[in-house]
Amino acid sequence: MKKLILDGNVVAQEMKEDLKGRVESLKRNGVTPCLATILVGNDPSSETYVKMKGNACKRIGMKSIRVHLPEETTTEELLVKIEKLNNDPFVHGILLQHPVPSHIDERKAFETIAIEKDVDGVTSAGYGQTALGFGEYPSCTPAAIMKIIEFYGIEVEGKHAVVVGRSPILGKPVSALLLNENATVTTCHSKTTNLAEILKQADIVVAAVGKPNFIQGDWIKEGAVVLDAGYNKGNIGDIDYNACYEKASAITPVPGGVGPVTIATLLKQTVESAERDMRDRNRVPQFRQA
Amino acid sequence: MKKLILDGNVVAQEMKEDLKGRVESLKRNGVTPCLATILVGNDPSSETYVKMKGNACKRIGMKSIRVHLPEETTTEELLVKIEKLNNDPFVHGILLQHPVPSHIDERKAFETIAIEKDVDGVTSAGYGQTALGFGEYPSCTPAAIMKIIEFYGIEVEGKHAVVVGRSPILGKPVSALLLNENATVTTCHSKTTNLAEILKQADIVVAAVGKPNFIQGDWIKEGAVVLDAGYNKGNIGDIDYNACYEKASAITPVPGGVGPVTIATLLKQTVESAERDMRDRNRVPQFRQA
Repeated sequence: MKKLILDGNVVAQEMKEDLKGRVESLKRNGVTPCLATILVGNDPSSETYVKMKGNACKRIGMKSIRVHLPEETTTEELLVKIEKLNNDPFVHGILLQHPVPSHIDERKAFETIAIEKDVDGVTSAGYGQTALGFGEYPSCTPAAIMKIIEFYGIEVEGKHAVVVGRSPILGKPVSALLLNENATVTTCHSKTTNLAEILKQADIVVAAVGKPNFIQGDWIKEGAVVLDAGYNKGNIGDIDYNACYEKASAITPVPGGVGPVTIATLLKQTVESAERDMRDRNRVPQFRQA
Repeated sequence: MKKLILDGNVVAQEMKEDLKGRVESLKRNGVTPCLATILVGNDPSSETYVKMKGNACKRIGMKSIRVHLPEETTTEELLVKIEKLNNDPFVHGILLQHPVPSHIDERKAFETIAIEKDVDGVTSAGYGQTALGFGEYPSCTPAAIMKIIEFYGIEVEGKHAVVVGRSPILGKPVSALLLNENATVTTCHSKTTNLAEILKQADIVVAAVGKPNFIQGDWIKEGAVVLDAGYNKGNIGDIDYNACYEKASAITPVPGGVGPVTIATLLKQTVESAERDMRDRNRVPQFRQA
């Protein structure tokens, strides 16, 4: 059986090439797509992620604004900042880098992001729309997984997809997206008592646990498609790659799998928000523009 | 093994007794909980459902308003009506009886209901909150199923729950609620290729298909808990009751299973909305009430 390496860099490259043209076209129309990132505190890996995202914006001609707030920022202060970005007509997307310091009400902060700027897909309203099948901006990692599946022509309908993890931005939305594509979906988590037994039935495995090398090779059915959404310290995924590689018909590496597509998805959704913004402006009748 | 009949009438009765006291207390404070039902067109079973819900309100001392719109009502006209109820301070809950006539954009109508009055749990925003674990008003039938499970002390954590159906108000939210109670959840549907095989693994089965007697006895594992959310013509559920009864350790009958608890849940959520309304009024500083 031919083994397929699901190369996220190839997918992301194609997406970014497409986006470059769209950004140029927006700029010709006077709109520069802009992503605002908010970082609270000084977690070094969060700083790295935010920097990476800002750089990715620049490389395709987008603007990015970095808001860096001190560790001791209160929830209220953060909400004020988010509201300001919600009301800033030059900002098309808002990304609050998580985790935020533990004294901050992260959910409240997420919920404050205006849904039309929630390009990272963190609000419950956005999640609800995604799950019911009409969301504009799903969470980026789940959307990236679906993009890889689509790019490589992997069949989803009627397949049994098993998602390991149930976080609001990963396990839950990827389960919802797979279900909407007509997979039979099982969502497993820390309280699942027979994980190996369930995984062995999976045609499609999505690992979204946050535990390095957690998914074992002998839990995987011969020929399964294995997608690793894990990003643990030292660039290690949630699956035991070498062991799962032997079993899988297709597999994402870490790094170079889901990660680059996630960032490309963030850019894409910000560009889409800018495109909507432009369409909305053009819809304003002339006499109101005086 | 002792067979447990999950008697929805007993559960609903207890809920309604509790609600009667809460309604009285609200009325003593000048607030009469009020549910507005909207019926578009003349579908006889929809008329019956709406009437049942109105009568259920009255029996526990609540008010209900019936809005009956003609078959030819447009989406726009319906939205105007919903907005009016959103802004009516005496209305605590809004129920749009579905299905609406096919020329109406049902989703748009649902989405127009203000989330604080969405006691029937039909908005995507409400669904998102429910799925992420902090929803005020889940869809009534899923909430009823969880209530029955709680009432009869059925263990959910670590169990494998299989939900058959994925509608926005039934299959999807009940999957989400079971997941939040730490079940491992599989959602099956019309594209599932190996339904019997998956159902045979289920500790908890929720049938939400809308096909009379669809779930067969030999698809059920010995000792499973079987919950039938189906309501098909002639008061027939989605499970083949007699055959499933033999296998199940606990089972809901149809009628008298999930149905009565669904209506009690609708009442409960409307009363909760009224209670929130009263708390909010009391929170207004005195000088602003002049």
